[in-house]
Amino acid sequence: MEIGLIGLGKMGGNMAERLRLAGHKVVGFDFNPQATAKLTATGSVGVNSLEDLVANLTTGKRAIWIMVPAGDPVDETVAKLKPLMKQGDIFIDGGNSNYKDTIRRHDELKPQGFDFVDVGTSGGVWGLQEGYSLMIGGDEEPVKYLSPIFEALAPAADKGWGHVGPTGSGHFTKMVHNGIEYGMMQAFAEGFAILKAKESLNLDLAQISEIWRHGSVVRSWLLDLTAEALKENPNLEGLAAYVPDSGEGRWTVFEAIDLNISAPVITEALIRRLRSREDNNYTDRALSIMRNAFGGHAVKKS
Amino acid sequence: MEIGLIGLGKMGGNMAERLRLAGHKVVGFDFNPQATAKLTATGSVGVNSLEDLVANLTTGKRAIWIMVPAGDPVDETVAKLKPLMKQGDIFIDGGNSNYKDTIRRHDELKPQGFDFVDVGTSGGVWGLQEGYSLMIGGDEEPVKYLSPIFEALAPAADKGWGHVGPTGSGHFTKMVHNGIEYGMMQAFAEGFAILKAKESLNLDLAQISEIWRHGSVVRSWLLDLTAEALKENPNLEGLAAYVPDSGEGRWTVFEAIDLNISAPVITEALIRRLRSREDNNYTDRALSIMRNAFGGHAVKKS
Amino acid sequence: MEIGLIGLGKMGGNMAERLRLAGHKVVGFDFNPQATAKLTATGSVGVNSLEDLVANLTTGKRAIWIMVPAGDPVDETVAKLKPLMKQGDIFIDGGNSNYKDTIRRHDELKPQGFDFVDVGTSGGVWGLQEGYSLMIGGDEEPVKYLSPIFEALAPAADKGWGHVGPTGSGHFTKMVHNGIEYGMMQAFAEGFAILKAKESLNLDLAQISEIWRHGSVVRSWLLDLTAEALKENPNLEGLAAYVPDSGEGRWTVFEAIDLNISAPVITEALIRRLRSREDNNYTDRALSIMRNAFGGHAVKKS
Amino acid sequence: MEIGLIGLGKMGGNMAERLRLAGHKVVGFDFNPQATAKLTATGSVGVNSLEDLVANLTTGKRAIWIMVPAGDPVDETVAKLKPLMKQGDIFIDGGNSNYKDTIRRHDELKPQGFDFVDVGTSGGVWGLQEGYSLMIGGDEEPVKYLSPIFEALAPAADKGWGHVGPTGSGHFTKMVHNGIEYGMMQAFAEGFAILKAKESLNLDLAQISEIWRHGSVVRSWLLDLTAEALKENPNLEGLAAYVPDSGEGRWTVFEAIDLNISAPVITEALIRRLRSREDNNYTDRALSIMRNAFGGHAVKKS
Repeated sequence: MEIGLIGLGKMGGNMAERLRLAGHKVVGFDFNPQATAKLTATGSVGVNSLEDLVANLTTGKRAIWIMVPAGDPVDETVAKLKPLMKQGDIFIDGGNSNYKDTIRRHDELKPQGFDFVDVGTSGGVWGLQEGYSLMIGGDEEPVKYLSPIFEALAPAADKGWGHVGPTGSGHFTKMVHNGIEYGMMQAFAEGFAILKAKESLNLDLAQISEIWRHGSVVRSWLLDLTAEALKENPNLEGLAAYVPDSGEGRWTVFEAIDLNISAPVITEALIRRLRSREDNNYTDRALSIMRNAFGGHAVKKS
Repeated sequence: MEIGLIGLGKMGGNMAERLRLAGHKVVGFDFNPQATAKLTATGSVGVNSLEDLVANLTTGKRAIWIMVPAGDPVDETVAKLKPLMKQGDIFIDGGNSNYKDTIRRHDELKPQGFDFVDVGTSGGVWGLQEGYSLMIGGDEEPVKYLSPIFEALAPAADKGWGHVGPTGSGHFTKMVHNGIEYGMMQAFAEGFAILKAKESLNLDLAQISEIWRHGSVVRSWLLDLTAEALKENPNLEGLAAYVPDSGEGRWTVFEAIDLNISAPVITEALIRRLRSREDNNYTDRALSIMRNAFGGHAVKKS
Repeated sequence: MEIGLIGLGKMGGNMAERLRLAGHKVVGFDFNPQATAKLTATGSVGVNSLEDLVANLTTGKRAIWIMVPAGDPVDETVAKLKPLMKQGDIFIDGGNSNYKDTIRRHDELKPQGFDFVDVGTSGGVWGLQEGYSLMIGGDEEPVKYLSPIFEALAPAADKGWGHVGPTGSGHFTKMVHNGIEYGMMQAFAEGFAILKAKESLNLDLAQISEIWRHGSVVRSWLLDLTAEALKENPNLEGLAAYVPDSGEGRWTVFEAIDLNISAPVITEALIRRLRSREDNNYTDRALSIMRNAFGGHAVKKS
Repeated sequence: MEIGLIGLGKMGGNMAERLRLAGHKVVGFDFNPQATAKLTATGSVGVNSLEDLVANLTTGKRAIWIMVPAGDPVDETVAKLKPLMKQGDIFIDGGNSNYKDTIRRHDELKPQGFDFVDVGTSGGVWGLQEGYSLMIGGDEEPVKYLSPIFEALAPAADKGWGHVGPTGSGHFTKMVHNGIEYGMMQAFAEGFAILKAKESLNLDLAQISEIWRHGSVVRSWLLDLTAEALKENPNLEGLAAYVPDSGEGRWTVFEAIDLNISAPVITEALIRRLRSREDNNYTDRALSIMRNAFGGHAVKKS
């Protein structure tokens, strides 16, 4: 079938190609003309305006997959697209939007005659070859209509995708997925740091992670990738101890608290990332001055 | 080759069978005569005394794999075995011993002419069919001698096992493996709890875990098993919110602190397990009475 | 001077009395006529309507201290009061409002000719006799105008109160104060729980807390109160292990994350309270089923 | 009465002076001759050998207060002193020893005819003027014998000291005291960091801490000292974000785990200190490389 795709970055570009390989017609737009040109070069239809995007979707309902950064870019894209769309057309938000925004957007568009489907999309840069895990929220009909797209993007037609619930469910589920991901990553990272610190045993972390990939309880895709990375750079040289967070982790923490669910591990994984970006932090300096004040303990000078 | 195996429980019994299927001769002992009889029934040699165990190992160095609970049972087994062993024979501790005990045992046995190899063994009840992940510590020679055994137990002859370092390295690495496992499990459990608590979306956790198994960043063996379990019992009915810990998690926490490594996620995963076993805990009651004392807040009565 | 006071509960009632003892005229309203009658009985002016409240404030600008639960009750009170007020009159929110609501309220009322002052008020049920700690936010002029009120409520005219910054600063500061309070309480509660658990030493917690009150590093008002409570009920009998949270703790956690500040202790203190209210929690049951799935570990049945 | 004192550092020197001011005869020894000379200058008896120390204690049982770093220095001091002591003499360990070492020492000395009393001593550099909080463990008789000493060191004869239980109880209680102290300090430090980070409000932390000292729920000695420190250096300039830990915090964490008590706040306070001393930590670099591996996220270079 035909699908429009807005945003041809790391994720969107690969998704377009996976769809094309499955026989779908992809019409793609990006603000970056190089990305558009690259899409055209692969055999899909790269366009330079939303008008052209819509004009090139000629068969059936128009379904447009938005793959842009969460927040304002999604609202802006929807606002620009809407005048070009017809009743019954489908907006798909495949990015990492907050599910509350998703519900708001759906509830605005639905009465205006548009469908809005949210798709939590996992798989990173490997999705092109391995397929994406798709958590889909929204109304029954448009989700059903789009099923050939989901079958193509997922690792297999009957695996790795599903309609998980009403509008917002897709993004909610993806948010929690990323929260879990934070916790898993932090667990592995701490474990490797402990192994590394045990200097008397002089352990080879690349070897250990490779062993664990086969038969151990912690075997996982994250471990596969980490083992590969450690093979190339076992001492993690040249890297700063600095870890961004992109939003979904903190939303998971907020949501857990709002739901009165205690989630210490996901929360600590987030807090640890915040800590990685604090420089000369006030907290530790305050501790230092308190120790000096009550106990006369020497402070370390900066 | 021939191998003795002491301890024919959930782990040991399966390992014996995997070794037999690979063509090795297994002589096994357990205090439970039923376990011994079961071993014999599968085609291995079940014996009812350590003397018989040793007597049935007739070719090459005697290698005896000890698969008993950590702590005193290992010391007792070694003490009973030692008078029956010859110079050059090999003790293998495949259980979850503390690596410090392992080093102590090795350092006692080595000058007496025995080898002692530590093998951190992961894989749980699935090891028979999928193979075990083996983290091996010890001296070069006995590890090399035992390689046919490791090749048989591991998922493949060249995968999932390795000599990771000097004596104690195997158990140290397995300890950290289990610490990571605690963190991963807790991350998943928290995520599922958040999904469950979002009642307005009425999410199907069995469906979601199945979707995640394919293409997502959190795909892992632990998720495979959890998806299976959720399919059978999505509301986890009949289970108590009670989680034991078997030692390796707390040792990982102690070790991290001794090494001055901050490991909040592994630590919180342990703390959360401790909390699951506290009944009418003093901490929360103390908070309750403090709130009453300063703010006049009502206390909930027990 | 004269002051109106809306909300004569645990906090408001005591504040009214402290103001009266300092020579101020207090006109108080509460939906509960008993609270109003009690106020009148102490020598202040209890009234049964907002109209009467305003009518009884006859000298100078009208200053009305709102001491009601955070959220809608504040908005409703302001909405009802506003038509009764004159240009230049002052609203004071002395409750535990979210500082963002405070800024919103101020920014609505200011252009309409009203002042709005936020006062974070700490001291609990002891404020009548010991005075309240007042963290004041707002514009210069109304804060200055109200200084006789603050001097009377604080422990001393020149101690325990201050204009800490622009609108919202008072409530922001009080929010963080409560976050710290959560952390302190949890630290004490954990410590007492550890002492209690060390059964071999059979420690007397009432005695220990009394010793600590004098000369120790942890001496504090919270400890004074806890020592008193432990004297009466050293085993905390009859109390449930159940701890509510009233909002400011979670706001502190949200704010820390929004500001990219890592605050693990305040956060864990909140999480622990959430945990105290989880019954048969899904997280621990999920851990239990995972342990069973990979390791064959027995689960505890509910 | 007479008392010997070994270790005239920050703590010991002040304790000697407080005892002298109360009318006791203090005979003090330190490896640093300047410390000994200083003691003599204040009117006590400074000596340069343990022999002289013992020789100068002429009335009643000899009671010798050991105020040296925990661990080997205590064992070495006891070993050197023992040949100089008589049956019935009393060793007092007033330092931060691990209570398990204390029990071991007591159990060795008692059958040899010596008493051994453990005193957890809190109060830091302020003890001289404000008195020390003393948590005392040991046998009934020697504790009773030493009561004039405890009355002099404590803030008042009947306040701030007590015999809390059998041998080890004093050090155990002090250990938990310090655990609580870690939690309280961290709670305050986090709170101040959040206030500081809220740049839009431009809060004055010295002013706020001063307000809190009077009437607030968090008022405490630690806050008194912090308010003083913030007055002098509100931006904590010149300080490194680096916080040592001296042992008792980690012992509290170990003990909590051994007792199966969940203590997240005390534990996180320790973990945060460990983190403050990690430079270019492996954990965060591992997270960084994982994010790159699965999501193609850019890494920050060191």
